[in-house]
Amino acid sequence: MDNAATTRPREEVIQVMDEVLRKDYGNPSAMYSKGLEAEKIIKKARDDISGTLKCARDEIIFTSGGTESNNLAIVGAALANKRRGMHIITTSYEHPSVANPMHALEDMGFEVTYLPVDNKGTVKQDFLEDSVREDTILVSIMHVNNEIGAMNPIGEIGKIIKNKNRDIIFHVDAVQSYGKELIRPNKEKIDLLSVSGHKIKGPKGVGFIYIRKGTKISPLMLGGGQQDGYRSGTENTPGIAGLSMACKMAYENLEKNRERMIRLRNYFIGEVSRMEGVTVNGPIEEGASPHIISMSVRNVRAEVLLHSLEDRGIYISAGSACSTHKRAASSTLLAIGTDKDLLESTVRVSLGFDTTGEDVEACVRALWELIPALGRYVRE
Amino acid sequence: MDNAATTRPREEVIQVMDEVLRKDYGNPSAMYSKGLEAEKIIKKARDDISGTLKCARDEIIFTSGGTESNNLAIVGAALANKRRGMHIITTSYEHPSVANPMHALEDMGFEVTYLPVDNKGTVKQDFLEDSVREDTILVSIMHVNNEIGAMNPIGEIGKIIKNKNRDIIFHVDAVQSYGKELIRPNKEKIDLLSVSGHKIKGPKGVGFIYIRKGTKISPLMLGGGQQDGYRSGTENTPGIAGLSMACKMAYENLEKNRERMIRLRNYFIGEVSRMEGVTVNGPIEEGASPHIISMSVRNVRAEVLLHSLEDRGIYISAGSACSTHKRAASSTLLAIGTDKDLLESTVRVSLGFDTTGEDVEACVRALWELIPALGRYVRE
Repeated sequence: MDNAATTRPREEVIQVMDEVLRKDYGNPSAMYSKGLEAEKIIKKARDDISGTLKCARDEIIFTSGGTESNNLAIVGAALANKRRGMHIITTSYEHPSVANPMHALEDMGFEVTYLPVDNKGTVKQDFLEDSVREDTILVSIMHVNNEIGAMNPIGEIGKIIKNKNRDIIFHVDAVQSYGKELIRPNKEKIDLLSVSGHKIKGPKGVGFIYIRKGTKISPLMLGGGQQDGYRSGTENTPGIAGLSMACKMAYENLEKNRERMIRLRNYFIGEVSRMEGVTVNGPIEEGASPHIISMSVRNVRAEVLLHSLEDRGIYISAGSACSTHKRAASSTLLAIGTDKDLLESTVRVSLGFDTTGEDVEACVRALWELIPALGRYVRE
Repeated sequence: MDNAATTRPREEVIQVMDEVLRKDYGNPSAMYSKGLEAEKIIKKARDDISGTLKCARDEIIFTSGGTESNNLAIVGAALANKRRGMHIITTSYEHPSVANPMHALEDMGFEVTYLPVDNKGTVKQDFLEDSVREDTILVSIMHVNNEIGAMNPIGEIGKIIKNKNRDIIFHVDAVQSYGKELIRPNKEKIDLLSVSGHKIKGPKGVGFIYIRKGTKISPLMLGGGQQDGYRSGTENTPGIAGLSMACKMAYENLEKNRERMIRLRNYFIGEVSRMEGVTVNGPIEEGASPHIISMSVRNVRAEVLLHSLEDRGIYISAGSACSTHKRAASSTLLAIGTDKDLLESTVRVSLGFDTTGEDVEACVRALWELIPALGRYVRE
């Protein structure tokens, strides 16, 4: 029940990685057949992934994961376009791999506007419209928030941005949405899109970035000039093969998976909403992702609930697990105006492609037992 | 015969990756047992790898490979120390993942001195000594050159640098030497050391950087603060487990492998030296790495020889394969003063841990046949 943190790789992903490790271990840059075979794997992965986004093959660049994709998008776009202006717009609840590069750019003299979100976690579009300036070069807005599952209408946002100025680069952190929602960069006017493998039953250590043809971006990693110079370094062929398998399979079953996850999510929310002291944070139906649920349990510390569930073989997360153990107050929960008393009593439950009805029922049953019992011991 | 480009992963590496993909797929940052198990894998890998270098466990930071390690070392050290000075020293024959970040730093206002090398490819130590200035903050010198196998005496170089000023950061690109030569960062006064997995029968897409405790370095990738903040992003646990297996096994057999490779290398050089029109570039015995041989064949284009050998199932490389297909004149060959007529007639042969005497004999036999035959068709 913590699939937003990471997922178990698919059997098919493990098998294709095994095969590439054993047979296609050539260096894709080598000029003999063993190299060409490795290069073919990368080309095929580009074909498969560009098929899921309906974009061109050479608009897909492989990276070491979501963090690298976000860093490349933000720092790369800012540095390559700073002559046009030094103003950037983002939101107040981005993942640290977006927020921290933004802070670094501020140290370098860029000005960053942090858009507020409403109490359901959706970006305020009127604020966005008012924030765009002559010198705005980049807007970065996450598709699905990793802590509360709020989903931004990226198509509408893309339209607002490009109506103001079509030269503004629009970046979307799609780490929590790709494979679960249809994304069409062309239609939605997205220029840069970040995706991670291990969130969609692919391997860790690999991801990709969609870079719309013609988008100016400085590479983060310099060297041998692989991947058209956007990302130097010998390509991670087994990881790339595993990633593309995971992408393809996610999209083959997208509608079915989505509907199933929404059904399970609604059942879960219906149950916990009736429990004493429980508040569900963020969106409930409209504007909600199919898989992430945030809930606060009055008088129960997140860690206590988490470990009590763990004793029953159920894993959930206290806030976001995509970062180190040290936890500051969640910027997302602050952004949606969560009651201060509830900040340390908030947990995240997240469904995956293979979460079953029984899994969710077991979790609900455990919560019905645990929450009243744990709530009795109020901490000082 | 192209093991300097990449290597076939060991069976043990593939197996441990398979196991981690199947069983230990938790997010190392998660607070429940599935996360702690994943974290343990990373800790164990740090233990194993720090054992090979006789350094502390937390001096090992995992990256996506040699290119990232080199970029992090150079850009990270330069940016973190620029208040102390903006002068950097490197050599004229570094790998593009060192040379290109240096050019980027020059664009940012840093001054870079490129040391010449002698005709055997060894850095001129008197030039190094004369180049160190008050404002020098970083010296980056590769251990083994990837094109000609020349090996620099990093211990002596470390002494020269630190005798001048112990605050200067000494970075060594050890991508071609780690696992083949003993390296002791403490003894050799190295502060930063770059290593890649796929050169030592580990997986692609993973490597590490040794960062001596107390060395100031700015992270390249910002985000969740993983790996003490040096490298954000969910750790590539299967890749890290595979890498550490490859490191451990390389060091277990280091002396034996080295001696065997040296024997095969000497046999190979002895044979090709007697062939008409063949020149061996770089060092022959003293100052030579155990595994890389560069040779020029007068009147035979590298591509022609390469493809003729490929027809016999023997893979070698024209220049360095660690970069894209486009080839400019090799900076290494220019640096050692190779005859201009030979630049396009130069190939690299490189041995690996499992190259056998039969492999080398087959290659030598093919060269005895091919070189006289191909040399007959002199190009205009």
